[in-house]
Amino acid sequence: MIEQKYKVVADYCQNGIPAIQRTGLTITDISERYAKVKMPLEGNANHIGMMYAGSLFSIGEISGGVIHGASFDTEKYVPIVKEVSIRFRRPALTDVTLEVTITKEEADRIQNEAAQNGKADYTLDLEIKDAAGEVVSIVHGIWQIRKLPEGFASPFPKM
Amino acid sequence: MIEQKYKVVADYCQNGIPAIQRTGLTITDISERYAKVKMPLEGNANHIGMMYAGSLFSIGEISGGVIHGASFDTEKYVPIVKEVSIRFRRPALTDVTLEVTITKEEADRIQNEAAQNGKADYTLDLEIKDAAGEVVSIVHGIWQIRKLPEGFASPFPKM
Repeated sequence: MIEQKYKVVADYCQNGIPAIQRTGLTITDISERYAKVKMPLEGNANHIGMMYAGSLFSIGEISGGVIHGASFDTEKYVPIVKEVSIRFRRPALTDVTLEVTITKEEADRIQNEAAQNGKADYTLDLEIKDAAGEVVSIVHGIWQIRKLPEGFASPFPKM
Repeated sequence: MIEQKYKVVADYCQNGIPAIQRTGLTITDISERYAKVKMPLEGNANHIGMMYAGSLFSIGEISGGVIHGASFDTEKYVPIVKEVSIRFRRPALTDVTLEVTITKEEADRIQNEAAQNGKADYTLDLEIKDAAGEVVSIVHGIWQIRKLPEGFASPFPKM
């Protein structure tokens, strides 16, 4: 379910970056500090019919941006990605999904730290699952929220 | 320079996977156990004009396949990727390139191990550079070559 308040976040994450839009990735659910993301197999298969590694990376990487939009003040803060590791555990032969969430406590800690220091790191451990619920890839990443300089327009659309 | 013998490898790596073809990635140089790969900024920029993280991942990930094609017997062995880490060191604001090479000794070791055990891992540490030669991202990955079962057609085109 797309909670109305976060619809602009979902639209922006799906369509704001052409290289992501080309994959056909969709945000199927979004609410406060939670999102579910889907990557279709169609258009993302590799030379032997499995989902291409880069499309699996993309569903993991974008999740750090989606959860930013669902958790932080997008008028004041922007996300960047610092590093991502992905382990390809088994072939993905169907559409895949990923759920991402952070706790209220973690969101508050991150945003308070960024308010004080201008930036704060956040780490996500994510599982990419196939249609049968099997974990096909495991993602570990470090993102950072950064306070926008005074008067700077956020690249995120207004919520 | 594209060495004629490896032209099919370059063509296949650029065009064999639609999600890579869509990025506009090109193999600009290929010879025995060496390749140089380029990712254009155009079509791969993110929401703030830098190269999208997923396109930087792709140039790293495909390099494991390109070096396979430039080093091993593609009629007998296929590559898979096991895991990849990428660290985003600084923004990529231009086209980026990556050079990948392995030694003759390393190529022999890997192929001999795969001949005996049916598979062999290989590790690559790669630097993605911008037009000024600055390292924008650092990639560490583990790939594997696997012996095709007897009578199985290679997905790689004949060289």
